[in-house]
Amino acid sequence: MGEFDLITRYLKPLAGEGAMGLDDDAARAFGRVLTKDILVEGVHFLPTDPLDLVARKALRVNMSDVIAKGARPAAYMLGLVWPSRLGEEGFAAFARGLDAEHQAHGLRLLGGDTTSGQHLVISVTMFGEPLFTTPLLRAGGEAGDLLVVTGEIGHGVVGLEAARNAPPADDPGALPYRLPQPPFAEAGFIAAHAKASLDVSDGLMADAKHLAEASGVDLTIDLQHVPFADNPGADEKLALRQMTGGDDYQTLFLLAKDGERHLVEAQQHGLRLAVIGRAEAMAGPEGIATLRAADGRLLSISSDGWDHFG
Amino acid sequence: MGEFDLITRYLKPLAGEGAMGLDDDAARAFGRVLTKDILVEGVHFLPTDPLDLVARKALRVNMSDVIAKGARPAAYMLGLVWPSRLGEEGFAAFARGLDAEHQAHGLRLLGGDTTSGQHLVISVTMFGEPLFTTPLLRAGGEAGDLLVVTGEIGHGVVGLEAARNAPPADDPGALPYRLPQPPFAEAGFIAAHAKASLDVSDGLMADAKHLAEASGVDLTIDLQHVPFADNPGADEKLALRQMTGGDDYQTLFLLAKDGERHLVEAQQHGLRLAVIGRAEAMAGPEGIATLRAADGRLLSISSDGWDHFG
Repeated sequence: MGEFDLITRYLKPLAGEGAMGLDDDAARAFGRVLTKDILVEGVHFLPTDPLDLVARKALRVNMSDVIAKGARPAAYMLGLVWPSRLGEEGFAAFARGLDAEHQAHGLRLLGGDTTSGQHLVISVTMFGEPLFTTPLLRAGGEAGDLLVVTGEIGHGVVGLEAARNAPPADDPGALPYRLPQPPFAEAGFIAAHAKASLDVSDGLMADAKHLAEASGVDLTIDLQHVPFADNPGADEKLALRQMTGGDDYQTLFLLAKDGERHLVEAQQHGLRLAVIGRAEAMAGPEGIATLRAADGRLLSISSDGWDHFG
Repeated sequence: MGEFDLITRYLKPLAGEGAMGLDDDAARAFGRVLTKDILVEGVHFLPTDPLDLVARKALRVNMSDVIAKGARPAAYMLGLVWPSRLGEEGFAAFARGLDAEHQAHGLRLLGGDTTSGQHLVISVTMFGEPLFTTPLLRAGGEAGDLLVVTGEIGHGVVGLEAARNAPPADDPGALPYRLPQPPFAEAGFIAAHAKASLDVSDGLMADAKHLAEASGVDLTIDLQHVPFADNPGADEKLALRQMTGGDDYQTLFLLAKDGERHLVEAQQHGLRLAVIGRAEAMAGPEGIATLRAADGRLLSISSDGWDHFG
């Protein structure tokens, strides 16, 4: 039984008020958006990744959730399992990484706990200030809405391959994996205009499916409109890996059709927003996400990989 | 360089408003008391401890901090690094443990993150509702105050020895280590009457030293007045181990001399509160904690263990 199933069966019944049934990316309590993402050495980052970038990534994956919920990242609690082998120099680098994010994004550290252990674990609980009072959730989209994604998709996959060779700290090829770029500039647009929204972290197709289910719509994504990273020829094989690879930390959201003019204006001001598809009424019992290739073929994804569809 | 020193040198400069300079047990933000304690398998609990009790302990060590800061434990975010070897049965037991604390203490789960890894790590961020508006801190005590401790001291040390033999889940000898008993009943008294307060988790002597430093007083503890667990003859050798063993999760606080009548009344109503010493003006540049044995000898503790003093 996987983590999703364990959570559904055993933790969901324990969810309290504000937990959104553990079905969304964040909780709402005390007038704040609350997220928690844990990073484990060897699972979410490589033991050879520079520790300042690991610290920054730990904060950014949480900021990504906060932004996708229409809020401004404000403060956090930091839990650390810190192996002594990383030494004082490692700790200093880690703290430098935190400080860099404080300076760039106005975050503040509220407290936490540091303990010893064999593998580095970073557990961040982040608090966001909602920009509007109505909660922005995965649910709320409707047939006719435009499907929009921020930034570029697939940096995580391409960057991970580079990072696996343990290149120097400033290697530009590994940087997109080591230091994700959540849509900081687009956060205000998301909060103001998105009807339903989530953080793209499991892979664009998987997260589109989550959005489709929660909003009760079918989503069709046009492959040729997806802003792929480092894939200038839109090579389909690479593109399909990028659609499922994860570690994007962009926001995927539904926008009312009449919001398109705001989108065009925002694009003209340099915001990285791409319309990649559309929401339609559900054809079956639950919302699905389908990919349309350049030649019109429809592809869907299953746990076994990509399937031809219909 | 130990964890305390790393935090002091590298994290304290990053502390923001509400963090209390990372010098206290909890933060204050959004009108809430915030704590975070991480438990690591093999460090804070034994791999053979029953998982329902591990879950309850993870919540209780956080509730202990919240209570010591004059607040009511209300809600939490849960971070889990969950090794697949623990299986669905283990996860079910863990969730049962959480639910037991929800029922007993009115806690609610807000959200969190579950990921895989080799060792079980439980990272709880807990939110408490302050019972009064003035924050209850380690600082605030004065010369003349009474030093009070809740419950009994030394269960952790005695219980750990029993738990090391991996006895059955309901073994009464191991239970005090596996399932600490924070001062739930005494929480209201602490919030109403304590001038300065902290959670006893590092060992009574070490935490008395923290309280002395923060409040700028010298503390003298009378060994014969400490309510030791499972040490009926007050064996001094065992008592000294119990004073330094840690894992007590009681509250140590300073009470104004004229609050003694409230204390006596509370004791008569069955609250477990013991006056174990007194605060005096500092003799040196910083507050210290000294232990007075039954025969009047003064003992202090250093990193090498117990020293005869003066």
